[in-house]
Amino acid sequence: MNELDFENILPDQIEKRSFEIITQELGNIKLADENADVIKRVIHTTADFEYVSSLCFSENAVKHAREAILGGASIVTDTKMASVGINAIRLSQYGGQVFSFMSDEDVAADAKENGTTRAAACMKKAVSIDKPLIIAVGNAPTALIKLEELIREKRIKPELIIGVPVGFVNVVQSKELIMGAGIPYIVAKGRKGGSNVAAAICNALIYGIDGK
Amino acid sequence: MNELDFENILPDQIEKRSFEIITQELGNIKLADENADVIKRVIHTTADFEYVSSLCFSENAVKHAREAILGGASIVTDTKMASVGINAIRLSQYGGQVFSFMSDEDVAADAKENGTTRAAACMKKAVSIDKPLIIAVGNAPTALIKLEELIREKRIKPELIIGVPVGFVNVVQSKELIMGAGIPYIVAKGRKGGSNVAAAICNALIYGIDGK
Repeated sequence: MNELDFENILPDQIEKRSFEIITQELGNIKLADENADVIKRVIHTTADFEYVSSLCFSENAVKHAREAILGGASIVTDTKMASVGINAIRLSQYGGQVFSFMSDEDVAADAKENGTTRAAACMKKAVSIDKPLIIAVGNAPTALIKLEELIREKRIKPELIIGVPVGFVNVVQSKELIMGAGIPYIVAKGRKGGSNVAAAICNALIYGIDGK
Repeated sequence: MNELDFENILPDQIEKRSFEIITQELGNIKLADENADVIKRVIHTTADFEYVSSLCFSENAVKHAREAILGGASIVTDTKMASVGINAIRLSQYGGQVFSFMSDEDVAADAKENGTTRAAACMKKAVSIDKPLIIAVGNAPTALIKLEELIREKRIKPELIIGVPVGFVNVVQSKELIMGAGIPYIVAKGRKGGSNVAAAICNALIYGIDGK
């Protein structure tokens, strides 16, 4: 047990070292420059290199999202886990806030009344926020499906959709659907994703503004 | 786009249907009965079947953990994301609480003073809780390394260690280390894991008490 070969590394160097290892292991795999730090941060969060091929970006999505954040955009997420994982302090420096409506009583009531999920009801609630928004869905495909409907009805027009719900029921389909909604997107195709992935993408967008 | 083949399913049936799909796709892979619902819930949370082979359980770990929860054990986690993902209401029905000390000022001060991570300092703080504890590490290998040291020094004796940090620096080694600490464990060998995985394991333990 004492034979374990630990790296001796200072706490504030761990993240830097992790990104070095990721870059090294990517080897000759060429990431598009503008998307590289989002992809690497998702790998950092998941230790899963599948995201190299599953993450899809609409044209200039990262650039557009960063401009939106610089302009004060807020982030709406579909889980509390994602909302606490986003660096709200850094976001607030540009004027944005992080919203999650999952625990709100009106959302629970709306979901019950309409036989839908709370995550879908959250998307309806997002319509009432009269600010530029990034919508980050890390859990519920039903949120993406409702969001696409609201976009079609011209009731909401987010700056960016982060579509990374995880799971087995309608997840793959909801991601395909949202990529056709005419809104800038970052989507993890397939079944994988999660609140942690949603938060990691938001943080990569925020951190990249200062080039850090 | 309208050709997408969505499953028409009621919100309260989605989780049940997801577990059916997981069971179906596992096919002939035989999970140990006592560990099956933990493994399946982790797959449900990650859509990643690698956990079938990476999750390691010490003997009777699940049984022992459920007895501890029934006896009022609390859960200490190393991230706020994990702590909000654990069903604290269900846990509280048995008398337990969810603790995360990551935002505590004394933890930040201790980490700075000792040149360690806040996650490691959190483990030191857990020593002061005079209750049966489950320690769930979903992020920081430094937390597992400190925890193993505290166990060796007989300063803490958790009922269960959930060792599922994720990443590239000392993650694999910290998991090997903690499996030799003489404490019941559930560990995801290798680099993968995460706050979401830690929370999923806690919830599977809690939900399984009532057989749900």
